[in-house]
Amino acid sequence: MTRVLVPYRVAEPKTRLAPVLDANERRELSRHMLDDVLSAVRAAGYDPTVLSTAPLSEKECLVDDRPLTTAVNAHLRPETAVVMADLALTTPAVISRLLETPGDVVVAPGRGGGTNALVARHPDFRVDYHGASYRDHLDRCETIGASVRTIDSYRLGTDIDEPVDLPELLIHGTGTAADWVDDRFTVCTDTETGRIGVERV
Amino acid sequence: MTRVLVPYRVAEPKTRLAPVLDANERRELSRHMLDDVLSAVRAAGYDPTVLSTAPLSEKECLVDDRPLTTAVNAHLRPETAVVMADLALTTPAVISRLLETPGDVVVAPGRGGGTNALVARHPDFRVDYHGASYRDHLDRCETIGASVRTIDSYRLGTDIDEPVDLPELLIHGTGTAADWVDDRFTVCTDTETGRIGVERV
Repeated sequence: MTRVLVPYRVAEPKTRLAPVLDANERRELSRHMLDDVLSAVRAAGYDPTVLSTAPLSEKECLVDDRPLTTAVNAHLRPETAVVMADLALTTPAVISRLLETPGDVVVAPGRGGGTNALVARHPDFRVDYHGASYRDHLDRCETIGASVRTIDSYRLGTDIDEPVDLPELLIHGTGTAADWVDDRFTVCTDTETGRIGVERV
Repeated sequence: MTRVLVPYRVAEPKTRLAPVLDANERRELSRHMLDDVLSAVRAAGYDPTVLSTAPLSEKECLVDDRPLTTAVNAHLRPETAVVMADLALTTPAVISRLLETPGDVVVAPGRGGGTNALVARHPDFRVDYHGASYRDHLDRCETIGASVRTIDSYRLGTDIDEPVDLPELLIHGTGTAADWVDDRFTVCTDTETGRIGVERV
């Protein structure tokens, strides 16, 4: 059975959402997103492990306060999946797609060159989340001779990082994080640009 | 065989890319993206029809200069797929996924609540691309009693609209539009925010 790690940073989560959410709200939303990801992993039939920077009172987790890349690599052993805690559009179906795709390494890209989820089944694979990690991960696979498959998923590709991501949660979300945002915000459309955003209800 | 419409606006395409591309470059990129979408549709085994606002000298196309929604609805008959011309990350595989998914209506959402691609197989379905069209299309399906399926695709979800989308093309693109951008730009990372962008080579 693939081990599924969900890295989670406890201190000051989601700082890029500061323009629309205060520190307490960012903590709340961040925990809802974590809960939704864990629920989706469980509903897909896997047992997730939170890799947390600090103890979480009500959850069993591995605690490792080192930077993300170091912490993940320390706990990477074949075969391990790493699913980010802010993938609030995640569903059990897409977790199954990720984990049932064959390949030494399976990667789900995120907006901006990131790697939002991956499965590592090759002993020499290591993560490097700095910068445009998607290309770095593909390069690493080539170097170590690992076969790589990509998951083409909008849900896994959408991490909730910035105010512009909140409409995505309102439109496509199905979990507690979407409900939390829906209680506080509504989708609005800028009449000049036609672009959508959120405003407080 | 499903008819595949690819709407294309000839005049002043891609104005939101004006911060990084001049008018002539925007026309060139826009044509490359159209060509890539048409190639992907053909490679998937379908025969695309360009629904153009003006004649295109070297291509067979339907010409209809009315607004997008009006023009598409005028040419919508079961069964018809509508694939946007700026989906420059499109591959034959994802076109096949779209067209082989059953359902009265099949929708591939795009960033910001848009509908980047769809298949209409219900006689009462009509498009409405204004605003957050994805939700409107789902609502319409409910009203007319049409079954609806969603395609969870990063490639179909990514239209190339703004400067922030160009790194997506450089990282994930495989066609002539990606080559065109690659000849002119390179991915760069903002050392402060860690976010990626593009700069002229």
